[in-house]
Amino acid sequence: MRIVSADTGGALLDENYNPIGLIATVAVLVERPYKTAKLSIAKYSNPFKYDLSGRMALKDETFLALKLAKKVKPDVIHLDSTLGGIEIRKLDDSTIDALRISDRGKAIWHELSKDLQPLAKRFWEETGIEILAIGKESVAVRIAEIYAGIYSVKWGIEYAMKEGFVRIGLPRYMTVEISKGKILGKSLDPKEGGLYGEVGMEDKEFEWEIYPNPIARTFMVFEAKS
Amino acid sequence: MRIVSADTGGALLDENYNPIGLIATVAVLVERPYKTAKLSIAKYSNPFKYDLSGRMALKDETFLALKLAKKVKPDVIHLDSTLGGIEIRKLDDSTIDALRISDRGKAIWHELSKDLQPLAKRFWEETGIEILAIGKESVAVRIAEIYAGIYSVKWGIEYAMKEGFVRIGLPRYMTVEISKGKILGKSLDPKEGGLYGEVGMEDKEFEWEIYPNPIARTFMVFEAKS
Amino acid sequence: MRIVSADTGGALLDENYNPIGLIATVAVLVERPYKTAKLSIAKYSNPFKYDLSGRMALKDETFLALKLAKKVKPDVIHLDSTLGGIEIRKLDDSTIDALRISDRGKAIWHELSKDLQPLAKRFWEETGIEILAIGKESVAVRIAEIYAGIYSVKWGIEYAMKEGFVRIGLPRYMTVEISKGKILGKSLDPKEGGLYGEVGMEDKEFEWEIYPNPIARTFMVFEAKS
Repeated sequence: MRIVSADTGGALLDENYNPIGLIATVAVLVERPYKTAKLSIAKYSNPFKYDLSGRMALKDETFLALKLAKKVKPDVIHLDSTLGGIEIRKLDDSTIDALRISDRGKAIWHELSKDLQPLAKRFWEETGIEILAIGKESVAVRIAEIYAGIYSVKWGIEYAMKEGFVRIGLPRYMTVEISKGKILGKSLDPKEGGLYGEVGMEDKEFEWEIYPNPIARTFMVFEAKS
Repeated sequence: MRIVSADTGGALLDENYNPIGLIATVAVLVERPYKTAKLSIAKYSNPFKYDLSGRMALKDETFLALKLAKKVKPDVIHLDSTLGGIEIRKLDDSTIDALRISDRGKAIWHELSKDLQPLAKRFWEETGIEILAIGKESVAVRIAEIYAGIYSVKWGIEYAMKEGFVRIGLPRYMTVEISKGKILGKSLDPKEGGLYGEVGMEDKEFEWEIYPNPIARTFMVFEAKS
Repeated sequence: MRIVSADTGGALLDENYNPIGLIATVAVLVERPYKTAKLSIAKYSNPFKYDLSGRMALKDETFLALKLAKKVKPDVIHLDSTLGGIEIRKLDDSTIDALRISDRGKAIWHELSKDLQPLAKRFWEETGIEILAIGKESVAVRIAEIYAGIYSVKWGIEYAMKEGFVRIGLPRYMTVEISKGKILGKSLDPKEGGLYGEVGMEDKEFEWEIYPNPIARTFMVFEAKS
């Protein structure tokens, strides 16, 4: 099974470890044995202008996943919304009302589906590829999340080279290591069976450190200074 | 404390990683230090004829646990139903209605208790051994689950020798290793403190692989081909 | 960020692994990189006289945290109650009623806040240090929990030297190792990023063992005999 999925993650943090805004949306192509990505593409946000209360992430993720899917023609697309794997093209208002999710979740999906449902329907008609709301059940979504952390670190290093310092909150229970010419990201949850990712970068001179976020257990903080 | 417990697990999977049916019910005897089984017995189902919507598993598990318990005379029997450790012999209709579980759970237990309550009562009167609905709190139930994965793999290897190929979904966060003459199963959750199991088998010529189930995060897939 | 936090844990267990009473309340000072404590102080309870149904733990923890905070002047105090990080000094009756917690939780906090709210208000007025109900989100609270396990083991070894034997249930997914002159406690959850603690003790002659609690999955049992 060849899966394209997408996720958004990595947050610029202030000195009290509170998020200022999210950094990277990433789409990945995941193939057997489903432990890392074969391909990845990233789109950066401006974390200083990010609306953390908004619902932009899932739309951005869908657009980026479609961009990658058009190129690599996967069997299926996995989005980071845990609706039991339902096809997005089937999410009309009565179907959303029948979902076993919170009222708030329904309100969000009534809004989101206005754009995403016709988009998914058209994409499916043209290509036969389904877009599923599978969320945390999907290993591919988790791999996209790990890559979002890696690309956020890549962005952070560039930022620190210019501004002197950066503090980034990584996605849940993952860590990164930096060695000559690449950033390696790894799940800290052995139950996931060894998920990881790797992205290349130019060699630079900087110091970095990774440690637990004191106010968000199981989340790590990455800091770099030039 | 000497505990007998039982569990059902290991699923034959189709090419989209959806379960066709469950494979093995296993009863184990667990003794201090509670990391593996001292004894195990297995009963195989026909996964092609398995009713996944049914409630057969818990009955099968109870019967198999009793079979082992009659032989080894444990201090207690643990079943895989998380009702806070209540004694099955006490599960009459009014007690079930008073449980803090879902209405669906109550309906299932009203049905199950018709058979299991008198059985547990008689067994307790004859032997003094209680049968507890302790479920996921019990390390012994988890060890039974790991053994269900191991026996499913054993079944799968036999199947692949005859049919050429098998794909099995293991119980939650466990993996297996195969080396000369035995199948070793291990929990992937270090929080559990190192639970594992081991079952012997005849030496055979086959290839095998284990990797994350892409649509069921923290579950591994075992494949073998002859 | 310099954080003082406190927690209570470690339970004396009977021969069926049921808790008799809790053993140690511990306050810790946690500083960057937030993986262990810089300082720790402990207050022992008498587990044989412990009211497990009571709500004493949080009060004891607050008093001990304040004792340490007066000495080390942290930036903030973290308590083990998961109310989203709200300041204790703001917990008046109408604020408690507006919390999104269970009715039982509200009743407990209506009672607790009578003492703790004025105490927190006064401490904040005098020092500017906030006391937050952050609970399981806080790495510092988890480190306090690990130290509560370590101090319980220290208490247990003393007890076993006098009484011959002790059986202690450690806080969730942690283990201990004892080597010359010290007790090392470690989180068993790698998602937490390597949390640990260490407490010195006099050299003694005894045997010890650690193994999974059979009726409380992911909890370990420590036993010592002289």
